[in-house]
Order: sequence, then structure tokens, then C-alpha cells
Amino acid sequence: MCQLLAMNCNVPTDIVFSFTGFAHRGGRTDTHHDGWGIAFFEGAGVRHFVDHQAAIASPIAELIKHYPIKSLNVIAHIRKATQGKVALENCHPFVREMWGRYWVFAHNGDLKGFDPVLDGPYHPVGNTDSERAFCFLLQQLRDRFGDQPPAMPVLRAAIADLVGVIARHGTFNMMLSDGTALFAHCSTKLCYVVRKYPFAAACLADEDLSVDFSQVTTPNDRVAIIVTTPLTTNETWTEFAPGELKVFVDGLPQS
Amino acid sequence: MCQLLAMNCNVPTDIVFSFTGFAHRGGRTDTHHDGWGIAFFEGAGVRHFVDHQAAIASPIAELIKHYPIKSLNVIAHIRKATQGKVALENCHPFVREMWGRYWVFAHNGDLKGFDPVLDGPYHPVGNTDSERAFCFLLQQLRDRFGDQPPAMPVLRAAIADLVGVIARHGTFNMMLSDGTALFAHCSTKLCYVVRKYPFAAACLADEDLSVDFSQVTTPNDRVAIIVTTPLTTNETWTEFAPGELKVFVDGLPQS
Repeated sequence: MCQLLAMNCNVPTDIVFSFTGFAHRGGRTDTHHDGWGIAFFEGAGVRHFVDHQAAIASPIAELIKHYPIKSLNVIAHIRKATQGKVALENCHPFVREMWGRYWVFAHNGDLKGFDPVLDGPYHPVGNTDSERAFCFLLQQLRDRFGDQPPAMPVLRAAIADLVGVIARHGTFNMMLSDGTALFAHCSTKLCYVVRKYPFAAACLADEDLSVDFSQVTTPNDRVAIIVTTPLTTNETWTEFAPGELKVFVDGLPQS
Repeated sequence: MCQLLAMNCNVPTDIVFSFTGFAHRGGRTDTHHDGWGIAFFEGAGVRHFVDHQAAIASPIAELIKHYPIKSLNVIAHIRKATQGKVALENCHPFVREMWGRYWVFAHNGDLKGFDPVLDGPYHPVGNTDSERAFCFLLQQLRDRFGDQPPAMPVLRAAIADLVGVIARHGTFNMMLSDGTALFAHCSTKLCYVVRKYPFAAACLADEDLSVDFSQVTTPNDRVAIIVTTPLTTNETWTEFAPGELKVFVDGLPQS
């Protein structure tokens, strides 16, 4: 199984602390050594880093741990190959453009017999079930709504419907963002925490490192972290229910 | 005006030497300080780095100067904003997927009154004339050839036709690659060199640095470098004719 990490905030925030713990799972505290990737929205633009080296051995992961890129929406992934060879084109997250926005997607799990007809403009470059699912999702959204995005409640309902269809084929924990919202779907394993005022110190589970967020935040900041398994030992993480899709906007799960 | 750099090779080659000289034009030996970007094909995958900081001040540019990513096709760009604000989403190169391949595009020049109808699946995320031209190009190719790419001579003729249409609106020096070939079009300024056996030493024009390629190559290697103005002082650079489209495959311009 791969591991997923995402962040959604109300002010641009760096993910250095959380990524540092997460990256250790890529070959040190866990066995996810078949590549990794991370995408940061910055305005409408995306910084996209992928590497088929283990995250602990990657010079690019090293850069990200020390270079505080501030973002409202981040999706990261550490890969343990189950389908598709170890190659750059199979590293998550994947990026496509739809409706004049970039869409970023990462998946944890395995889909069996998922071979939808892809006759729209989105085709996989690599050979993972994950990228196929992403292309299917975008094709279906474009088929339903044409050239313009619908209002958020309509979009959310459509995504919930489509991830349900895909999840019938296996485990489909996934993160999806268009830079304005973060959609997180749990098949088997996903949890989140919202960091907000009054901020406290947090201790990483995967490395002997803690940070006192009250020193680096303002009272208005709000940061949701969504991850496969809890990153810290002294925060209260909320588990997703199986089959649940949550949408995070401005650092908060929407009801 | 922006500056363009591309590499096309017959064996995966790093671009550290050429990029080092080129990056100095991003704020030191020239005034292109409104961001930069570079994309490397690695197999079917792409590593895509963009930054709206000047290339000389960018930690990511620093990483690339020291981390030899080996690639058959690379496109880099240093931006001096003429249209579109300084923002990540306006940094070249741009990436889209078509026909199950990534396409990478960068442009130097200015287009006037270029406002084509974009009713296909490709829409600009930022607000540059360049990204608009890229979306137009892909839309037209998809309209002509549907869901499958045509044979190379047909594709080349179509691209030559389309860049001619765009170039009627202004200066359109551009680089385009799908990872198998590099298409370079010159409106006003572009030149290239093919490095091959017997390799010699080359001295950068923008920095006091030389490299003896005979030490780092085999007799079979062939590397084409295409750039806005020559990068080295002791190699023979061939200028493109205005209006010329060249296609490079395996380090050689195709006749």
C-alpha cells in the first residue's frame, strides 16, 4: 500500500514539518521505496515534483524539506508499486488541466478489473490503475458538465458518485484538488487533524522532531492535514469512515 | 524577450553544463528575472520545475545545476514578462497530456490580437498569449487527428502549418516536445549545435566554465542543443532561418 498526505489551509502555509515525517515512511520507517511525489498549488499554478527514487534518498525530497513552499493545497504520495513498473510516469500525484484549472490526484490502494472506456481527452501516460481512475474521473466530470465547472455542491455530489463507482473495483483512498478545495475519499484508511488557534506543539511519530505551531502562526490560521496514518503522537486525529468523501475548504471539512 | 533552451539526444544526457550558463541569463548576464522553468522527459514521464523567482536566486535552479537529471528531451525557459503577470501559472514550460503522452511547450516572443476560439479540452490556466497558443495548437492537432497521433511526417507538416498560423500574430520562437521528438520554430532568433564524436571542450559564454565533453561521453553519443543565442564561445552554432521549423530526433535535425 502507498501512503497519502494532503494539506488544505486558509492562508498559504508550508508543509515542511508534516512532509519531513511523511518522507521518512519512504524507505526508512516504512517500506514505500518505489518513488514519491508532491504537488503544491501556488495561486492557479502548480509546482509538481516526482521522483522514482525512495523519498529518503531523493535530493528533491531533501530540497522540499528545507525550502518552505507556501501553499493552500498540497497533495503528496509515497509509492509502493503494486500495479505498474517503477518509473517516473507512474509516480503520483498526477496532474491534468480541466476547465482552465490544474487538477492534482493521488491514490492509495488497488483496483481490480477497472478498465473503463477512455474515449475523452484524458489518457494515462503510465500504466497504473490509479492514473486510469483519474482519467476516468475527469472524463466523466467533463461529460456531465461540459466546458464549465458546476457549483461546488453539484461538483461534490458528482465526485462522490464517481469515486463510489471506482471504489467498487477495490481500495480507493484518494486525494483530489483543483486548488480551491481538497476532496479526500476513504475506502479503508484515512484520518485528519485541523490545526487552529490556540496552536500547540506537535511531535512527529516518524522522527524525533517537534514544532511549536504557536510560534509560526497567527490566530486566524487554519490548517487541515489529511494522511493515511497519524503523523504526530500528541494530536487528536479523526478517522474517516469507510466510503466517506470529505471536502476541505479553507482548512475545514465542509458539512 | 524571454530566452529558450532545449536539448534533444540519442542517449539520456544531463543538461547541467548548458543550464548553468543559461540560468545566468535569468537575472545576472541578462534581465530575464520574471521566473523560469524547465521540463525533463524521463521515459514517458516528465519532471517539471517552474519558479517565479529569478533563476539566479532560485533554490530549485541551484538543485538542477548540481543534480544531473538524464533526459532525451529537455525544454527550459527564462521569462521576461511582456504579457501576463509574474506568477507561477504564467511560467513556461507548460505541460499538457494528449494521446497518452505529455507535451511540453515554451515560447519566446509576443503575439498581438491572438484570441482563437478554444472550445476543445485545452484551456489556459494563466493569462499569457503563450499558453493560449499552446492550447490552440493541441486543440487543432486533436481536431485533425482525433484520438491517435499520425505518423511523424504528417504530424510535422501539421505543426508547421499551425505555427505558421500563430506566427502571423507576432514573434513565435517556440519549443515543443512529446518526449520522442523536439520541434523548434524560429520567428526571429534561434540557433543550434550538435555535439558528437569527436567531442571537444566547450566554454560557456555566460560564466567562466568549460567542460571537456570527450571525458563524459561515448563515441555514439549525439546531443543537439537549441537556444535563443549561443551558449558557448568556441562552438559553431547554426542559425535558424526566420519561419523555419526544425524537428530533432536522436540528437539530429531531420531533413
